[in-house]
Amino acid sequence: MRIHPVILAGGRGERFWPLSRRARPKQLLPLLSDRSMLADTLARLEPLVPASAAWILTARDLAPAVRAAVPGIPAQQVIGEPQGRNTAPAVALASWWLHGSGADAVAVVLPSDHRIEPANVLRSDIEDAAQVALERSAIVVLGIPPTRAETGYGYIEAGEAVAPGSRARRVAAFREKPDRATAARYVAAGHLWNAGMFLFPPEVMLREIRSHAPEIAAALEGMPEPGAPGAERALERYYAAVPSISIDYAVMERTRNALVLPARFAWDDLGSWSALGDVGERDAAGNTVRGRALLEDASGTVVFAEEGLVAAVGVRDLVIVRTGDVTLVCPRERAQDVRALVERLKGEADASALL
Amino acid sequence: MRIHPVILAGGRGERFWPLSRRARPKQLLPLLSDRSMLADTLARLEPLVPASAAWILTARDLAPAVRAAVPGIPAQQVIGEPQGRNTAPAVALASWWLHGSGADAVAVVLPSDHRIEPANVLRSDIEDAAQVALERSAIVVLGIPPTRAETGYGYIEAGEAVAPGSRARRVAAFREKPDRATAARYVAAGHLWNAGMFLFPPEVMLREIRSHAPEIAAALEGMPEPGAPGAERALERYYAAVPSISIDYAVMERTRNALVLPARFAWDDLGSWSALGDVGERDAAGNTVRGRALLEDASGTVVFAEEGLVAAVGVRDLVIVRTGDVTLVCPRERAQDVRALVERLKGEADASALL
Repeated sequence: MRIHPVILAGGRGERFWPLSRRARPKQLLPLLSDRSMLADTLARLEPLVPASAAWILTARDLAPAVRAAVPGIPAQQVIGEPQGRNTAPAVALASWWLHGSGADAVAVVLPSDHRIEPANVLRSDIEDAAQVALERSAIVVLGIPPTRAETGYGYIEAGEAVAPGSRARRVAAFREKPDRATAARYVAAGHLWNAGMFLFPPEVMLREIRSHAPEIAAALEGMPEPGAPGAERALERYYAAVPSISIDYAVMERTRNALVLPARFAWDDLGSWSALGDVGERDAAGNTVRGRALLEDASGTVVFAEEGLVAAVGVRDLVIVRTGDVTLVCPRERAQDVRALVERLKGEADASALL
Repeated sequence: MRIHPVILAGGRGERFWPLSRRARPKQLLPLLSDRSMLADTLARLEPLVPASAAWILTARDLAPAVRAAVPGIPAQQVIGEPQGRNTAPAVALASWWLHGSGADAVAVVLPSDHRIEPANVLRSDIEDAAQVALERSAIVVLGIPPTRAETGYGYIEAGEAVAPGSRARRVAAFREKPDRATAARYVAAGHLWNAGMFLFPPEVMLREIRSHAPEIAAALEGMPEPGAPGAERALERYYAAVPSISIDYAVMERTRNALVLPARFAWDDLGSWSALGDVGERDAAGNTVRGRALLEDASGTVVFAEEGLVAAVGVRDLVIVRTGDVTLVCPRERAQDVRALVERLKGEADASALL
């Protein structure tokens, strides 16, 4: 069994502004360690999978920064997409390039900017899921047992076990992001979160794409390996030809060949600065600090000082972020509204350096 | 009548940290305009008094920065005190140097870091007080009509008018900083705040010092002009010889020769970052901004961005200060506690650059 990570790193999240910028989105930020989220993502897979086996799909302008963030990966395995086309064309492309890798090859698609702990449990779940995917020629989704009635994620309704005693179950249905009441019902019913993590033999995914997304399959025909003559032009043509569609809509919700393995690791998509305070190390007063801070009578506060010192007295449940050019302050419950600031900055004449 | 400002600029206030530092105390900060508070103080006196007539007493290590802040003053009129000895030795020294300036000379002692508005009313009050000081050979204090029962200031109990129809009154007593109940009583009784602003013919002050602070008077004898041979050594000896005592204790509370003129200008000593929000320009939501800020749903907040951008969402009644190396955040009602942060920093090994 040879596992090939396919890391989707095309995000442009604005919720970690001012640390995140156009040229340095969330996956390139050192939010949980001194390395980028992307480097953390690959490090978690070692020693199960060497970084050199991974493929990363990102935006073309981000490719140099991505290569710098994960130097262990051959440069041509970092694909700079000439335009954003959502996840299905990216997954199809990686499957195409991997499909000659041998009968024991399994691709594992992973987001590049989530928190997963502990890493050894993730590796163990990946091994189990890869085994099932190979044995059953199936797409196996890692389903996250929910910890709250979240309305921001899609859900997976699990069906019967694939075999007596197996943790893997059939997928009865994928459920789109629910309203609050429906989310509570899903959680009570034992549905799982869809965190965009799935495993498959490359040929299995290509077959599903041929069945359910024939425009994408057609665009793949004749695509050369990265680095081969004409590869760059071929990539341009491919992204110009394919529809913009997620792998969930294009394949997962249509295939009858999807299984789900309930994950045993802790997962968080780190949707905002406030989430750092939920998952990071906290002091006795519940403050989470990255960088240099001086706190006096402070509680529940998330501090991220990329440079310089953040000093605070008497603050409660705030987010305070300091970069070389911006200081952000907001209550943790308003952390999502950072996007409103970014939107306003976009309208300002001399603000492009801050975006 | 020739008016000679004597500006006391030796303060080391820590309440405007992180903008204020050891080498750049409050009087050198551009808190109310694009100039330092000290430069504002002198600018308010023009055209009544040219800056070249002023004397400034400051700490020796601050003298170069003070000279740079007020280039219109001859360098030798900026006195760098070799050690801090409170206000009486400084006032005595300036009086000594000014006492040969002529029979129409009046010194006006002013703090260097207060807010006074409007400037033309200040000048008019100074002219009136100087006239009274000359005519009556007295020390005339400018008393501030209180706007609240403040416990942080000393009070002046005014007696009878010096003449029918005159605004100037005798000082019945100086009152030390009161407790809350006493302060309320003082305000109700019409007592005035002592803001450390007073005028006198230099000979009058020297006479009072000889009577009430003979050690200081003795140390003055033979003191050469600044810049004269031996002046620097003489200054060292003087400051080594005099007691550390305020002009209030040394002279004002003892003399029978003090008058008070109720001021007609608005005054604020800007005791903390929060005070900027009380006196500065405010937007419709009550925010006071200096520097570059991006505020969304913010109210009552004081922002001072020395460099970079301060962005905030959903904040209420905060102080947010950004300098090149520090960000400070605190509720306005905790602005006095900034000193606690400075105290803690003093105990940190690698923090001296931040102090």
